[in-house]
Amino acid sequence: MTTSATPTTGSFISPSALLEHWQGHRRLTRRMIETFPEDQLFTFSIGGMRPFGELVGEMLGMAAPMLRGLVTGEWGTFTVPAPKSKAELLHAWDESTRAINEYWPRLSADRFAETVTSFGQFTGPMYWQILYLIDNEVHHRGQGYVYLRALGITPPAFYERD
Amino acid sequence: MTTSATPTTGSFISPSALLEHWQGHRRLTRRMIETFPEDQLFTFSIGGMRPFGELVGEMLGMAAPMLRGLVTGEWGTFTVPAPKSKAELLHAWDESTRAINEYWPRLSADRFAETVTSFGQFTGPMYWQILYLIDNEVHHRGQGYVYLRALGITPPAFYERD
Repeated sequence: MTTSATPTTGSFISPSALLEHWQGHRRLTRRMIETFPEDQLFTFSIGGMRPFGELVGEMLGMAAPMLRGLVTGEWGTFTVPAPKSKAELLHAWDESTRAINEYWPRLSADRFAETVTSFGQFTGPMYWQILYLIDNEVHHRGQGYVYLRALGITPPAFYERD
Repeated sequence: MTTSATPTTGSFISPSALLEHWQGHRRLTRRMIETFPEDQLFTFSIGGMRPFGELVGEMLGMAAPMLRGLVTGEWGTFTVPAPKSKAELLHAWDESTRAINEYWPRLSADRFAETVTSFGQFTGPMYWQILYLIDNEVHHRGQGYVYLRALGITPPAFYERD
């Protein structure tokens, strides 16, 4: 899982707009956690896949720790936190939201093309590291949508990010 | 589904790197189409959701037509193509890949923060329009992963984008 830096000419999106885009996704994921029935959050599975609560644990293990690493250059081992209830998951989610907002302005725009190795394992430009987090969240949240539908529950609208 | 323009200071990612990021996702989605059993592609469903072939049809209806609209300012009605076989789907996918690569360099970097209305319906900055396409693809492809797992088939690795 490595990628090389690509030439940077102009801007597709500013750092502040990207943060807002990400936090919009994170608000939707939070709404998914709220919508999921507590008694299925850590147990319901299709095809041997992880329950939604565990997928959210992975998102939590990646997001704020990645930003902390990018800002400070200090990387712990990648670990997946394992909250045991919906309340704990939502609490950890909100802590993560705050941490992301706190770390973000400490990354200067000229660093996003810089190649770094995250968690001692994954080498690529900073923008790639961050897009990986977001894409991984969207990917696993989409799986949560199938779980909810299979449980007969209507998931929150995908386009709603407020 | 509207959003307002966000202040642009600096760059998170360049237009060329974003295109490469997107085409990496599209290569993975292509691999998903290839992996899906032909006899399940337009029929298999969980919880009343659309089959994977229809979700891919939606992606095709959004991607190249969006870029064409952003480049030319001409918008047709949003329509979802309905290929009837895996071969047709893959052919349409490859056509779409070429169209995206052709339109992309015709969008100058200073336009991505410009607010536009796509398909006569969705108003927001160009970067938001494009990220919506990508996120929608990742979201529905993630659902395809659950379908494959439910069918007892191992999906392609999420991090593999070559």
